[in-house]
Amino acid sequence: MRTLFHHPLCPFSRLVRVVLAEKRLEFALQAEKFWEARPEFVALNPASETPVLVEDNGLVLCDGLAIAEYLNEIHRDPALLPTDPAPRAEARRLVGWFNYKFHVEVTDQLLGQKVFRRLGCHRAEPDSRRMRAAFAAIHDHLDYIGWLTERRAWLAGPTFSLADIAAGVQISCLDFIGDVPWDDHPAAKDWYARIKSRPSFRPLLADHLPGLPAPRHYADLDF
Amino acid sequence: MRTLFHHPLCPFSRLVRVVLAEKRLEFALQAEKFWEARPEFVALNPASETPVLVEDNGLVLCDGLAIAEYLNEIHRDPALLPTDPAPRAEARRLVGWFNYKFHVEVTDQLLGQKVFRRLGCHRAEPDSRRMRAAFAAIHDHLDYIGWLTERRAWLAGPTFSLADIAAGVQISCLDFIGDVPWDDHPAAKDWYARIKSRPSFRPLLADHLPGLPAPRHYADLDF
Repeated sequence: MRTLFHHPLCPFSRLVRVVLAEKRLEFALQAEKFWEARPEFVALNPASETPVLVEDNGLVLCDGLAIAEYLNEIHRDPALLPTDPAPRAEARRLVGWFNYKFHVEVTDQLLGQKVFRRLGCHRAEPDSRRMRAAFAAIHDHLDYIGWLTERRAWLAGPTFSLADIAAGVQISCLDFIGDVPWDDHPAAKDWYARIKSRPSFRPLLADHLPGLPAPRHYADLDF
Repeated sequence: MRTLFHHPLCPFSRLVRVVLAEKRLEFALQAEKFWEARPEFVALNPASETPVLVEDNGLVLCDGLAIAEYLNEIHRDPALLPTDPAPRAEARRLVGWFNYKFHVEVTDQLLGQKVFRRLGCHRAEPDSRRMRAAFAAIHDHLDYIGWLTERRAWLAGPTFSLADIAAGVQISCLDFIGDVPWDDHPAAKDWYARIKSRPSFRPLLADHLPGLPAPRHYADLDF
């Protein structure tokens, strides 16, 4: 069967899990401590990063966005990017925003220090200035989500898209460690409640890591 | 005319410049000190990041990869991604590698501290451990380019693609500040010599920044 090498708190692994579920594709999950650079895993992905998807025919796919684009091209229903080039570009702009800007400014700082460093993944020393900057930046990002969803049904336009998935998975990882200031951002919270209630997102809410319990609201649809 | 808001040493701006030139599309360049968050610029891109492309019809496009994908969909000749989904995914894997992994591990550290910080762009304090890690990581990336080009004509396969552009523009920014250890990586150097000799790359080699002269070899095709 199609196998996804993933880590439960890797946002890009979560991106692919949600895309696969939206497309109603079956897959087996294999958890990978990517930082250990297991030789068989490095042979699949020389970056030694999750996610890696191995298709039934043996095709090996790496990089969350590359995998998502591939799945969206091969399995067209439901479409996770608009058909017309201009709205597609808008969706991809927001995918880039959350995959890169949000990840670098927020997720990688907070999750990197609080989770991956603790698990043994090599990281730079904790830097209190960078952590403070991340806690400040998350407010700007949640404000922007609120601003967008006051103007559009979903982040990139009238339909649910890869932009919502890209944003939702980054935020879901931070929510797992209780770092999302929901009380200050009701519009973003409303949007995330809709994301959480999608069947494709439910499996993420059941994730658990030994020794790192998620806060009670994490899996609660009415949080 | 189509206008690209860019910064000469922003690798993602360079990515779009090369894509536009490969497609033989005319455009005007407007330099933007994106970190100053000029209100008219933030109105175009709330991230206040280059590149931003404003099309003749007024369409505003942001995010280097989203712009590249858009241009490649609208102007199909020459194709900068393979047509078949599997090799497309391979090209996009490498685009992600250089746009994200290489940029975070190397370009953003070295260029961020040596150029953008000096220009007044807000940055975290210099961190000698991170700088050392970046100087170490560049060797691994150049080794990987060498490994790939010993097996393929271009990074992603038999044809020049967005993967070569994505890698080339990151490296070109580091070459501008003299930080590419070419002597240790002859195979990567051979590949980059082919990149430099493309007409689409030539304008990048003529870039100059006041007070920051490029080393002599930067523009030399026989470096």
